[in-house]
Amino acid sequence: MDLRDAAGSTALLTDQYELTMLAAALGDGSATRRCTFEVFARRLPHGRRYGVVAGTGRFLDALARFRFGDAELEIAAGFLDAETVAWLRDYRFTGDIAGYPEGELYFPGSPVLSVTGTFAECVVLETLALSVLNHDSAIASAAARMVGAAAGRRMIEMGSRRTHEQAAPASARAAYLAGFDATSNLEAVRRYGVPGAGTSAHAFTLVHSGADGEHEIEAFRSQVAAHGTGTTLLVDTFDITRGVALAVEVAGPELGAVRIDSGDLGVLARQVRRQLDELGAVKTRIVVSGDLDEYAIAALRAEPVDAYGVGTQLVIGSGAPTAGMVYKLVEVDGVPVAKRSSHKESRGGAKRAVRSARDTGTIVEEIVYQATADRPAPDGYEVRELMVPLVRGGAVLDLPPLAVSRELVARGLVSLPWEGLKLSDGEPAVPTTFLA
Amino acid sequence: MDLRDAAGSTALLTDQYELTMLAAALGDGSATRRCTFEVFARRLPHGRRYGVVAGTGRFLDALARFRFGDAELEIAAGFLDAETVAWLRDYRFTGDIAGYPEGELYFPGSPVLSVTGTFAECVVLETLALSVLNHDSAIASAAARMVGAAAGRRMIEMGSRRTHEQAAPASARAAYLAGFDATSNLEAVRRYGVPGAGTSAHAFTLVHSGADGEHEIEAFRSQVAAHGTGTTLLVDTFDITRGVALAVEVAGPELGAVRIDSGDLGVLARQVRRQLDELGAVKTRIVVSGDLDEYAIAALRAEPVDAYGVGTQLVIGSGAPTAGMVYKLVEVDGVPVAKRSSHKESRGGAKRAVRSARDTGTIVEEIVYQATADRPAPDGYEVRELMVPLVRGGAVLDLPPLAVSRELVARGLVSLPWEGLKLSDGEPAVPTTFLA
Repeated sequence: MDLRDAAGSTALLTDQYELTMLAAALGDGSATRRCTFEVFARRLPHGRRYGVVAGTGRFLDALARFRFGDAELEIAAGFLDAETVAWLRDYRFTGDIAGYPEGELYFPGSPVLSVTGTFAECVVLETLALSVLNHDSAIASAAARMVGAAAGRRMIEMGSRRTHEQAAPASARAAYLAGFDATSNLEAVRRYGVPGAGTSAHAFTLVHSGADGEHEIEAFRSQVAAHGTGTTLLVDTFDITRGVALAVEVAGPELGAVRIDSGDLGVLARQVRRQLDELGAVKTRIVVSGDLDEYAIAALRAEPVDAYGVGTQLVIGSGAPTAGMVYKLVEVDGVPVAKRSSHKESRGGAKRAVRSARDTGTIVEEIVYQATADRPAPDGYEVRELMVPLVRGGAVLDLPPLAVSRELVARGLVSLPWEGLKLSDGEPAVPTTFLA
Repeated sequence: MDLRDAAGSTALLTDQYELTMLAAALGDGSATRRCTFEVFARRLPHGRRYGVVAGTGRFLDALARFRFGDAELEIAAGFLDAETVAWLRDYRFTGDIAGYPEGELYFPGSPVLSVTGTFAECVVLETLALSVLNHDSAIASAAARMVGAAAGRRMIEMGSRRTHEQAAPASARAAYLAGFDATSNLEAVRRYGVPGAGTSAHAFTLVHSGADGEHEIEAFRSQVAAHGTGTTLLVDTFDITRGVALAVEVAGPELGAVRIDSGDLGVLARQVRRQLDELGAVKTRIVVSGDLDEYAIAALRAEPVDAYGVGTQLVIGSGAPTAGMVYKLVEVDGVPVAKRSSHKESRGGAKRAVRSARDTGTIVEEIVYQATADRPAPDGYEVRELMVPLVRGGAVLDLPPLAVSRELVARGLVSLPWEGLKLSDGEPAVPTTFLA
């Protein structure tokens, strides 16, 4: 892709003030000061016990396309002086970025991303970095709770229609990262290799209706003819009991699955399971969907549900649609800086972080320390360094594939103390300690 | 733009099941049945009294780019037969679309979009239409409440960092449509011509700190040198009273504005106004920002605030991040169809809608009627037809510019009964009546 191409450039996915600050800093010489900016969340969303870092890979991809071509410069020239516009034309990030790898858990104050370079080259990345990380981390954090609630059953992401069309594939990616098995979103299949899923909606049954009434059986016959007996038939368009009977009549006991999208899913799943078993379709799976969130998923744990389709609540972060991360200047020419006018105080100085754990692997504490200090080594605990290099001298380093990041989420969830996995409102699963 | 270009195609912003249904329908002949699908919201978000239709323009733009090029067909070929893939290669929407114009108010059941054509050409548009309309309408609906609460004061959208990077310009557009004055998002400036705004963040003040302490005054001098005395200085990095004194010392009484981003904004606005007036800066405006929603905006109505900067709560729809609209098949070959297995029943038949009003202009009722029936004319009321043609025979008709849609929102809000503008939870401002 031509990086100066309008469709490819990410440079204007930016707040205007990043560039007005740049202009003033170029004017007074502060533009070249060596700075570190850090991304962190002051707190987790209400009641949440952990967060999942997501979006790092998408951010680094967007960073490589953060270039000002003619179209971008035309907008910049509308409110900036010629010197600043010329500087933007040559913009390349040449600094260093470290951070929590994608899929790592985070807690309040965890320095999930640390960006070091000149003030000018770092400040302009604020909006883009936060947009990506705040969105993807919010979705992954909600998704991880849902995956935990599903206790190993198949999870299908199907929320595309309830979020911005470009947020949809990013949501599918974040959900997959957090342990979902598949997505309905084809752009996520293409961009990120997430496995695709989906067979039919009520419209398909209804289009087989006519002036002479309903013909659900024709819809089922057509779908089985096109996609085989392993397909999933949607059985709740008219009457579920009749729908299940027709489905097995058409596909036989080899029918892959039936989907129920409405009603009391627990009661219906039990009824449908009994009916399927009586019809000999003992291997036919039951997929449920319809306004599911982590609580509804957990409530169905005792029911004969084989797979969950999750839409709206996944893509809106189940009540927390943004992770609330901020991008703060913490160090200038080696000196820690922080604002101090309010309760929103920041901690100055470039930081690093370790997580301590018992020898069982259960984590105990997040320890954030000054990058210039020795790594903490609390007696009797294992400690693991959390930040990894992501960009060095402007060059994006090789990132692990999504499958590896997915493993990291799974390992992280296993490392939580048991109360960290509770769905009820609570405190962060482990405390964060800030050393000086 | 080459419509077959990967970056330009919107065809995969689609759920997989739209294409598996297509394949089965092509197989059994139902693909060519003449169908009408309708987009509507079964209900408004909890407590809301009206919604604002937004995204129509973006959807029609995306429709023109709904084309399957080689990259899209490669994904489709992964789960579809050759006949279906060939059909997709030639896909062009050739049907008709009518709907509420962008900026129109809507209520539960309002048929905001009506898509008519063959089953095949219509069904594949479901996900894309809903993604765009659900996102943009959610943001515009929240924005309109905020604009109402601000009672004429300047509103700046600055939420880009708290939403997906591509949802950000769409949010800025929706906010502008609903009456916001400007956005921080530069991509929205480019794509949609929304006026840009923004001057500086705390990082700019902090980068002027050093080993010898704080130099807030240098930051202010630099910003005024670069952007003139009409700029907005951010005065709350360290101590607000001192910040205001330095700001006026540097810029003089011609200083454009000061921004306060933290603390008790009401108390601080009063203090700062008094201080500015005493310093002779009687025309210097006060901009407030920081976790504002419509309630916080309303609570500041009695304070000397000149402009609001709204971020997070705008882009997350102030508690309702998605509009919950659905896309339902309502008519097949002239026969109304509807599912009936649950409480989520739909009303069959292609519909149209009028809104009745008193001669004062205050609206009374939304009336949804069958397209084949006569237009309702309730005695003693004016009625206005709500749906307009948007696409005819596949050709997208000329849309009004954003400024005209913005006027429509403003007129719509004026037409509400007074309780419709209350921020408290309530019922829809007018009832929706469904005629047979």
